[in-house]
Amino acid sequence: MTPDEFRTHGHALIDWIAEYLEGVEQYPVASQVQPGDIRAALPEHPPLAPEPFTEVLADLDRVVMPGITHWQHPSFFAYFPGNSSYPAILGELAAAGLGVQGMSWVTSPACTEVETLMMDWMQELLGLPARFRSTSATGGGVIHGSASEATLASILAARWRVTGGAINSLGDTSHLVAYATSQAHSSIEKGLRIAGIGASQLRVVPHDRSFAMRADEFARMVADDRAAGLTPFWVCCTRGTTSSMAFDPVAEVGAIAQREGLWLHADAAMSGIAALAPEHRWVNDGLELADSYCTNPHKWMGVNFDCDLFYTADRAALLGALSILPEYLRSAAAESGAAIDYRDWQIPLGRRFRALKLWFTIRAGGATDAVAMIRRHVAATQQLAEWVAADGRFEIVAPHPLNLLCLRLKAGNEATDALIVAANETGRALFTRTVLDGVVACRVSVGARSTELQHVRAGWELLQQLAG
Amino acid sequence: MTPDEFRTHGHALIDWIAEYLEGVEQYPVASQVQPGDIRAALPEHPPLAPEPFTEVLADLDRVVMPGITHWQHPSFFAYFPGNSSYPAILGELAAAGLGVQGMSWVTSPACTEVETLMMDWMQELLGLPARFRSTSATGGGVIHGSASEATLASILAARWRVTGGAINSLGDTSHLVAYATSQAHSSIEKGLRIAGIGASQLRVVPHDRSFAMRADEFARMVADDRAAGLTPFWVCCTRGTTSSMAFDPVAEVGAIAQREGLWLHADAAMSGIAALAPEHRWVNDGLELADSYCTNPHKWMGVNFDCDLFYTADRAALLGALSILPEYLRSAAAESGAAIDYRDWQIPLGRRFRALKLWFTIRAGGATDAVAMIRRHVAATQQLAEWVAADGRFEIVAPHPLNLLCLRLKAGNEATDALIVAANETGRALFTRTVLDGVVACRVSVGARSTELQHVRAGWELLQQLAG
Repeated sequence: MTPDEFRTHGHALIDWIAEYLEGVEQYPVASQVQPGDIRAALPEHPPLAPEPFTEVLADLDRVVMPGITHWQHPSFFAYFPGNSSYPAILGELAAAGLGVQGMSWVTSPACTEVETLMMDWMQELLGLPARFRSTSATGGGVIHGSASEATLASILAARWRVTGGAINSLGDTSHLVAYATSQAHSSIEKGLRIAGIGASQLRVVPHDRSFAMRADEFARMVADDRAAGLTPFWVCCTRGTTSSMAFDPVAEVGAIAQREGLWLHADAAMSGIAALAPEHRWVNDGLELADSYCTNPHKWMGVNFDCDLFYTADRAALLGALSILPEYLRSAAAESGAAIDYRDWQIPLGRRFRALKLWFTIRAGGATDAVAMIRRHVAATQQLAEWVAADGRFEIVAPHPLNLLCLRLKAGNEATDALIVAANETGRALFTRTVLDGVVACRVSVGARSTELQHVRAGWELLQQLAG
Repeated sequence: MTPDEFRTHGHALIDWIAEYLEGVEQYPVASQVQPGDIRAALPEHPPLAPEPFTEVLADLDRVVMPGITHWQHPSFFAYFPGNSSYPAILGELAAAGLGVQGMSWVTSPACTEVETLMMDWMQELLGLPARFRSTSATGGGVIHGSASEATLASILAARWRVTGGAINSLGDTSHLVAYATSQAHSSIEKGLRIAGIGASQLRVVPHDRSFAMRADEFARMVADDRAAGLTPFWVCCTRGTTSSMAFDPVAEVGAIAQREGLWLHADAAMSGIAALAPEHRWVNDGLELADSYCTNPHKWMGVNFDCDLFYTADRAALLGALSILPEYLRSAAAESGAAIDYRDWQIPLGRRFRALKLWFTIRAGGATDAVAMIRRHVAATQQLAEWVAADGRFEIVAPHPLNLLCLRLKAGNEATDALIVAANETGRALFTRTVLDGVVACRVSVGARSTELQHVRAGWELLQQLAG
């Protein structure tokens, strides 16, 4: 492809994206294909000769689009928000065009320095504790690919700190114990498993009726484990659980963690971005006691995946856990201490210039736009809650302070399951199922950039109609 | 930003990228800034109001470009190839525009199915063993973000297999022992550390004069560890080491690994793509004995970062290590066994539609283009070797079968170090230093898409001139 062909096809693809996002409402929300359909529509073997690029773009419509579940659709109420925005898409494009590696400061200084600044801008915009700022004495932040990676990095830093680095050289993790509720994200258990800490060393702390961690139970379990000669080392407080958006009490848990010497990780992947709006800044409560924290602009701020903000108040532990310096990666800048090498703050070595999409988004007014969107989503969710409460066939099964409502049919689990399946099959909306203490619930996550009250109303009317 | 503004700015950015890549040669290869310079050129605090997007794009030139080290520059001889191409950039743009999550088949079937097909297309194009194909009885492949992640996944699958899954529940890694040479990539030790296997459990297998693993020493060390009551479980053969592009003998090591029940991982991140050219397919020698394998189209195939191909012949072990299924991620398609959920094949949960850039690249003729580029780079490297051999001041310090030449001044380490620093300071080329068994060497990695023989000649003349 020549530069001029790139211009031609690039302009066409930009237009295609604008048209897609403008018209996304016309698609069924969820793909209607069966397993194997997409592959069967494509050649089983690679082409032997170049194909005209217009045919490739045509296949986006012919082959790919029927296999897309539209996360940007205004009636996408499934999983969690994964909203994108035009400036962020351009940021991703710019990063791909530059094609630089940001593993070390020296491999492209702007990739590191814009990222550090964006982490500090976000610390301000979210009102996070100053000790997470890169200019603080012991803290700092980095963009990770996902909250799963942030969780794992947090576990590794905690493991390093509690063992004085011994695990890095000796490898016996068997005495370490971690804590979270059953409502914590699956990446918690996965991260612990990856780190060599078995599931039997993850204590499931009981939750209260709002699905939030019981701090008293946490304290009791820590004491029991200490008495058994084990080493409590890491606790995860979720600020906005995936299933029901419950908020663990960080301040109470943090006080215990601090006293007992555990690393406290606060996982606000889904809901932390709400703090952009001052009235929702309570989501940050207690974070001054957290050793690490993450939240995802790629969920609810229009910065397309992947962009997870990972902050720590103890960068020495993080670097202790993740630094390795082979000869071919040495640089004078890093050895002077004046530069950050983000490869030592993350699991992989390589990294894209992900800060560009955050920079583009914030400068184009994306933080302000996100506040307006967040307010619209929260208001729509609260309106939905009123509608649900007024329909005697339904009930709400969990607190709903922000943009997720968990509802069910009083007729029971089977009826609720059937309702979700029936609603999703219409293609007019998409919901996800969860189970809360044995109760099947329909999760209504209000989070697409294009979602307005009218879409929430239509989704609710669909559920009402199908409930019979 | 409105859709029409996106069209306008998007077209401008496409043109900007074409202009950048056409004119990249005019820049100094390495950024000339000092730590802090880029940040100082930007506001310390986030903007309170939206800025015109034309100003953001102008700042790409004003602020970002001085901080870029140009991996696409034809005189970029540092680190490893990180070449991009126009079709791949468009693939990244399309993925950002669609904004879908590919964590499960059901969250966007096309994201999974195009990826599976691309892994199979690449298995064919590279001539890899059929047991890595997704249609094989026990194998399959997945796109990872980087070889570091592939290495970690391999370690976790091996750990799972050798312990019958016990580590996932019990967490005692202390008896496990891994093997690699001192020339293996830093991600090997880092992956083991992450997995809770300390550095003291990583045996550094001696290498021969070509910096390749000695299979006899590997066998001896495994026997010693068994005699000591330990459990040898994982060995890494590198096909193209980072420092000098050495090739560990996979067939010999594999025979021992198979006999002794170790998982053999073959890391061909940097050089495996050479197999696109039939005359270089020897890089695959012995892979039929590997349990897992990775190579990076984001290094030497014009598919911009991130795109690592990770194959395994034992997907059950990989899934055993990495599967977790919370209620909110269940789907009928996955439970039927008819669909792949790639979240269980990788470290994070979320994933972008990375297969698009591979699909776009291959269909636009990128595999053929890559073969031509690989041949050009290898020929230029061999020509360079002749020039170096003819200059009595220099010597070549390692075998150079492909596109990396390690050279030094006979005057010694200090002189060689000084030469590298002096050459890089000119901005006319960029080299990386390494140390091979105590000998400082200048690595000349010939791998940018735009690199022609003339650039290699100019780089060599620069070194000659500065050698005094």
